[in-house]
Amino acid sequence: MTTDPNDPMHHAMIAAEAAAARGEVPVGAVVVGPDGTIIAQAGNRTLELKDPTAHAEMLAIREACEALGNERLTGCDIYVSLEPCQMCAGAISFARLRNLHFAAADPKMGGVLHGGKFFEQPTCHHRPEVHQGHLAHQSAELLRAFFRTRR
Amino acid sequence: MTTDPNDPMHHAMIAAEAAAARGEVPVGAVVVGPDGTIIAQAGNRTLELKDPTAHAEMLAIREACEALGNERLTGCDIYVSLEPCQMCAGAISFARLRNLHFAAADPKMGGVLHGGKFFEQPTCHHRPEVHQGHLAHQSAELLRAFFRTRR
Repeated sequence: MTTDPNDPMHHAMIAAEAAAARGEVPVGAVVVGPDGTIIAQAGNRTLELKDPTAHAEMLAIREACEALGNERLTGCDIYVSLEPCQMCAGAISFARLRNLHFAAADPKMGGVLHGGKFFEQPTCHHRPEVHQGHLAHQSAELLRAFFRTRR
Repeated sequence: MTTDPNDPMHHAMIAAEAAAARGEVPVGAVVVGPDGTIIAQAGNRTLELKDPTAHAEMLAIREACEALGNERLTGCDIYVSLEPCQMCAGAISFARLRNLHFAAADPKMGGVLHGGKFFEQPTCHHRPEVHQGHLAHQSAELLRAFFRTRR
């Protein structure tokens, strides 16, 4: 992977690759503080933790909240290697994250551009600014390679 | 509250009342195994745990998965005192819960009858059977009383 190690999405991709190495669907997420420091980094761990909620974004958000001692991540941003699902989109809103950056889109499970499009609903009371596409090709390739070996 | 102690929704209401006593938004959830035994019971703890994902349903699902040693709760049912939000609806689907029973509807935050209506989306790959209304009045009254003292 030839990306910039100062780019948070690069670290989300590293977390996704680590998830693949553990046999988990390769998705990674990073939470960055208002000053640009990475405060949490996580990969998907649903199988390892036997927890259907242990998506990368959920783990990174919970870790960041613990680090900051606050259930709101006001002014923080999240970088995810894949479009968040409906559950994670909800958590991103509740955590008051400022910007959501995601790499590949997910037509099958995504909840931002697809399905219930949570951030467009009147039941969504905090909308992050959404940025999509950076490192999308690398992320999609990692997912394809992972599922090729499984199916 | 004059309800049947053998009714799982009664126990969801007890968890909701306990949440209110802790200063948390009064929502409670109970997961019941295939044989009718309660395997997890939780109230909302977002403030206490400083965790925006610590909704009653999420905590009950995670506790039930830990109890069963499985990230899928196949054949289990969940009883919630309030319509699950978009995040919790996602978790209920991922956990493969069989039946979702909820008491009061939630037009402001709900994700089952309102907003993105997750279970009706093509991005939802497991739909529980949904049952609504039992103890709805008691749950709505508890929420109203809680917010009356806060606002």
